[in-house]
Amino acid sequence: MKKITILGSTGSIGLNALSVIEKNPQRFQVEALAAGRNIKLLNKQIEKFKPKVVSVSTKESAYKLRETLNAKSKVKIFYDEEGLKDIASFPSADIVISAISGSAGLIPTIAAIEAGKDIALANKETMVMAGDIVTKKAIKKGVKIIPVDSEHSAIFQCLEGYNNRNIRRIILTASGGPFLNFTRKELEKVNLSQTLRHPKWKMGKKITIDSASMMNKGLEVIEAKWLFNVDIGDIDVLIHPQSIVHSMVEFIDGAFLAQMGVPDMKIPIAYALTYPERIMNDLPSLNLAKTGNLEFFKPDKKKFPCLGIAYAACLCGGTAPAVLNAADEIAVSAFMENKIRFIDLPEIIEKILSRHDSIKDPSLDDILQADLWARKETKKIVGRIIK
Amino acid sequence: MKKITILGSTGSIGLNALSVIEKNPQRFQVEALAAGRNIKLLNKQIEKFKPKVVSVSTKESAYKLRETLNAKSKVKIFYDEEGLKDIASFPSADIVISAISGSAGLIPTIAAIEAGKDIALANKETMVMAGDIVTKKAIKKGVKIIPVDSEHSAIFQCLEGYNNRNIRRIILTASGGPFLNFTRKELEKVNLSQTLRHPKWKMGKKITIDSASMMNKGLEVIEAKWLFNVDIGDIDVLIHPQSIVHSMVEFIDGAFLAQMGVPDMKIPIAYALTYPERIMNDLPSLNLAKTGNLEFFKPDKKKFPCLGIAYAACLCGGTAPAVLNAADEIAVSAFMENKIRFIDLPEIIEKILSRHDSIKDPSLDDILQADLWARKETKKIVGRIIK
Repeated sequence: MKKITILGSTGSIGLNALSVIEKNPQRFQVEALAAGRNIKLLNKQIEKFKPKVVSVSTKESAYKLRETLNAKSKVKIFYDEEGLKDIASFPSADIVISAISGSAGLIPTIAAIEAGKDIALANKETMVMAGDIVTKKAIKKGVKIIPVDSEHSAIFQCLEGYNNRNIRRIILTASGGPFLNFTRKELEKVNLSQTLRHPKWKMGKKITIDSASMMNKGLEVIEAKWLFNVDIGDIDVLIHPQSIVHSMVEFIDGAFLAQMGVPDMKIPIAYALTYPERIMNDLPSLNLAKTGNLEFFKPDKKKFPCLGIAYAACLCGGTAPAVLNAADEIAVSAFMENKIRFIDLPEIIEKILSRHDSIKDPSLDDILQADLWARKETKKIVGRIIK
Repeated sequence: MKKITILGSTGSIGLNALSVIEKNPQRFQVEALAAGRNIKLLNKQIEKFKPKVVSVSTKESAYKLRETLNAKSKVKIFYDEEGLKDIASFPSADIVISAISGSAGLIPTIAAIEAGKDIALANKETMVMAGDIVTKKAIKKGVKIIPVDSEHSAIFQCLEGYNNRNIRRIILTASGGPFLNFTRKELEKVNLSQTLRHPKWKMGKKITIDSASMMNKGLEVIEAKWLFNVDIGDIDVLIHPQSIVHSMVEFIDGAFLAQMGVPDMKIPIAYALTYPERIMNDLPSLNLAKTGNLEFFKPDKKKFPCLGIAYAACLCGGTAPAVLNAADEIAVSAFMENKIRFIDLPEIIEKILSRHDSIKDPSLDDILQADLWARKETKKIVGRIIK
């Protein structure tokens, strides 16, 4: 019986993870859950999965949850950032699913690693912001970091049993998002609801917007660099609109291994929880004879500048990727609030990066400071934009 | 330094293997070579690779080789089937590349296994005829059998590090050969030179004709059953005209792993020789953005009945696959000699199979008797056909 903690239990990955756990009660047990403000949903999850402890974002929410809970429930309720860290490091858990959205996932993920928990990593910001620190800590603690993102899970599956010195190249595939075939002129006018219509994957709002701008792929490139210990120059991106091939590895002999399947996050989540074994599910099988042709082509970096900006931030290193990420989070929020246009996203992020003096070999505190600085600066720029 | 014996050094696989060895003199050394009648080419190979021993098919050829050899050469020359077995079991070799074409590869491959040599297996007939006996012998002797066929090497690479109880399905890809889009009417008239024009792979004549009829894929299905210890019902075939995906494995969770690359036998040969490591080569890298779309569709078993016949023979088991193989060898020879039509191949083979009483759990002698019987019967049928 594997004892599981989920950070971000009411989000998209959290729900998929609970669905996997629900279907395999003989294998998995929910130990602890961390949510934000969605008290109603967390309440239901407590009823069903009976975790020992939960956390919510504020003291207020914690009291509200206690009031609405079944009187018999013995669950302990924590709150705020300290409560979240307590959940992440809760002693009896075997593995922590790190699925809080955005930079807020970094500190609790580090807390889980420091408590010696294996990590099923869905929070790419952990690696984008602090890949060097996090990977070193994981090695020191003997902790496994198993990726949950479909692309990184694909690469992890392709590399299983392989020595990574035989890698020539990692190739991340990208669906291309809803605007793949839009012209620059058309991109100028896209609105939020168009941007949220991802052609292949059902995900949270922030990541869906990042997919449309290709910033998501840029963040994934940085994540892949740290997860698989390869140079950024050895990571390529290919557009693959069918989203059947989830990513590939090219080895030094020219052989490729590709992982494929139906686009459903329950597959990589289950794999991260059962690795190195696999378990059955009730998903439809991929029928390649019916999916039609698989297409691959190079991304258009002019039309989607965010991808190139992310590569540049990664090459720059130090605190630059944290700044990239923070600027993107603020800019995407502004886009969601209809304050800026879709095409303003890369321009704003690039401007912030160009103003930042990256600190080499940063401490965690340096990274958090850079993150704060970038948020403040981005908000300033956003405030001056007249849409 | 790995010491290598090649059975079938003057054939297509043998030449590719020697090319790999030549480019990696610090890794590989040729210990022994077995050829058939191509004395001229074997002579050059002896000059270049300086094996300790060689064998040829007849005493006559052996004398001829001795006469034409450089007087300084110290190579020992063996001949006939006994000589071939001596080469296969030559004491100082680490690995034997089994690349003799057809059923003639069975006995020397068994000799190599009995001598404790690892096998790089390119001779699929070894598994088709005697998969049960050969796999058991290999386990008993602690010998690794590493496939060289591109499809089986692909699956072997996909399974590396995995437990085979997690397999749901093996999917062998097939280019579809030169007659993929021919009508039945057109198939009635195809000649030998059309049949030898394989669209993707440069191979020997017999296997190229088998590719056109899809018997080759049928033999590969049977080979896969034994190599990977799966039920024949869990092996599927998909037509993939681009020959980029060399084969795939579907796991119980619905995840697929596929191995891809440029179609060049030097990649799987090198992998078999260096497994579990890989080595660099000077082949062009696969550029998926330039190869165009990857297509997959179901094979047309009506137009290419050989595939279904092979499945039936495998399901029947016992000596049936050996009979299938022997009938095919004789029928293909007759086609090469212009004695029968291309579309006669499946009809002849099916007739022979229908007359055969398969022996369950056959001994090696039972298999060889069934092979002889099928050859004789097929020759009779071929003799009665008026083209």
